[in-house]
Order: sequence, then structure tokens, then C-alpha cells
Amino acid sequence: MAEILVDEFKLAFRNHPAGVAIITANTPEGPVGITASSVASVGIDPPAIAFSVTQSGGSAGKILQADSFVVHLASAQNLDVLKAFAVSGSERFTDAQGWGTLATGEPHLPSARVALRCTPASITPIGPSSLVLAEVVEIIGGDEGAPLVYHDRVFHVLDPARV
Amino acid sequence: MAEILVDEFKLAFRNHPAGVAIITANTPEGPVGITASSVASVGIDPPAIAFSVTQSGGSAGKILQADSFVVHLASAQNLDVLKAFAVSGSERFTDAQGWGTLATGEPHLPSARVALRCTPASITPIGPSSLVLAEVVEIIGGDEGAPLVYHDRVFHVLDPARV
Repeated sequence: MAEILVDEFKLAFRNHPAGVAIITANTPEGPVGITASSVASVGIDPPAIAFSVTQSGGSAGKILQADSFVVHLASAQNLDVLKAFAVSGSERFTDAQGWGTLATGEPHLPSARVALRCTPASITPIGPSSLVLAEVVEIIGGDEGAPLVYHDRVFHVLDPARV
Repeated sequence: MAEILVDEFKLAFRNHPAGVAIITANTPEGPVGITASSVASVGIDPPAIAFSVTQSGGSAGKILQADSFVVHLASAQNLDVLKAFAVSGSERFTDAQGWGTLATGEPHLPSARVALRCTPASITPIGPSSLVLAEVVEIIGGDEGAPLVYHDRVFHVLDPARV
């Protein structure tokens, strides 16, 4: 029964469309980054966001330990970086991908639509996963770009037609 | 400066594409419901989700007080309900919209792609907003439907082409 629930749960969210973000931090061991389809606005007073990570090790664990991180809301211009981050062992933070560094030390991707520098407000664990609530302390504008949506394990550019 | 930050923050998320959900609960005063573009998967052990609400009064406040609620992941089939919920004073939970009731009492929309019955695990306030973490206790399958995305204040059906 529990396994059926987990399979149905995975399928439910695999087919729930989502915007995509690239979250980066500076650590003593160098820059780290993850992609996330769970970033959402929580409130404006103060400006706050949330996202989830599904493991406490690796790059996700380092984001959880960071005093600050940068949430880049991605557009179709960032597909190369998103695909590089999805492949284990691929080169990250290359000059060719256009990375820079903020004055505060975090890796910054100017081609993302917008970058939100955040400090963690709370981290709530549930099993091996964590829900992060963070305050936005600085917003850095980026490039225009076609809206990008992750759905059923692939990326789509949003059709401009409304319904 | 703070006002500029809030305006930039609103713009950043207005243009961040998101799937759409309809969250319902049963209360002593009758059924309540809200729409949310912040629903995300948090983890699978246990299956858990998160979403935010930006006020503590009205229907959102009643969802925050409920012992259980149902998160419907919406498709293009649910546009009529989504639009009715967006308009203050419009009729909700009408028979014409296809609402039913679960054995556990919550309003249920069978035409949604899937319905996740949840119990709250934690509610974290930040200013007048709240971040809800909830465990999924039951999953009820629904109808197939075109993937629906909210972006720049309007609904879009997702183009099936991958990029």
C-alpha cells in the first residue's frame, strides 16, 4: 500500500508543471549549485521564498548549510546550464556558461531572468528531505528570456497563448 | 529601497511559470477552497508537499486551521472552477462544477488530474504569510487533462514540444 502511494505521488508531481530555478552558494570547498522546480513565493512582508531539497548530502547539503544563497529564476536561455547540472560529473560553473561572482561571494548567472540573494529563515526536515524558507535580501535583474517549464521530465517553452 | 525590492520581487514571481492547484477543506461553516500556484513536492519518505498562503483570514485561514485538506492538481479541465475561485463573491462548490465529497468530508473535484488528501505537518509563519508542510495520506486519481500553467497572471496550456 505504502509503495503504491509513493508511486502515485511521484507520478502526480512528475506531471505537475513547474518553473525552474538554479540555486547556488559559495562554500569553503568552492561553488555549489542545484536545480529546483519547487521554488515559490511565500510572502512579501518580508519578501520570502520556499523550496525543497530531497537529500541532505552533496550539493543540496551544502546549500542547506550556507549562510546565503542565490536563487536564479531560469528562462530558456539557461537550458545549457540546467542540462549540465542534471548530468552527474559534467562541468559546472564554466566561463563558457557565463558565470560570474557576486560581491558577496555567491556564483551568479547573469543570463537568468532574475537572481534573488537569500538568507535562510527556517529549514524543516521531513524524512531525508528538507523544506527551506528564506528571506530575499537582494534582487539582481538579468536577461529577458522565454518562460521555461519543466513537465514530465522534459523542458518546454511556454506558449504565449492564454486560455 | 524596501518598496523597490517588493515590486521587483512581485515581478520576479509573476513571470515564474507555475502549475496550479485547488485546495479544499471541510469546516464547521461549510466547504472552503483556495487556489495555489505554490504547491510542490517536498519528499517521498513520507510523501510530503508544501504550499504557501499569503493571508491568515478568510478561506486561507480556514485551510490553515483544518485537520485535513485536499490538494487538487489542476488541468485545463478545471479552468471554470479556477476562474470562479478567482472572483470574489462568485458561486463556489456548485453541482454544475462537478464537486463531490470524500468519505472523510472534504470537497472533492473528480475532474482534477489527481487529488492528494493531506494532514498538516508544520505551519511556519513569516509576516502575515504562512508556509505549510503537509503529509499526503491518500491519493485519488482523476481525469486526464491538458497541463495548465499560470504565468504573468493568465493561464496557458503547455505546448507538448520539448526543448
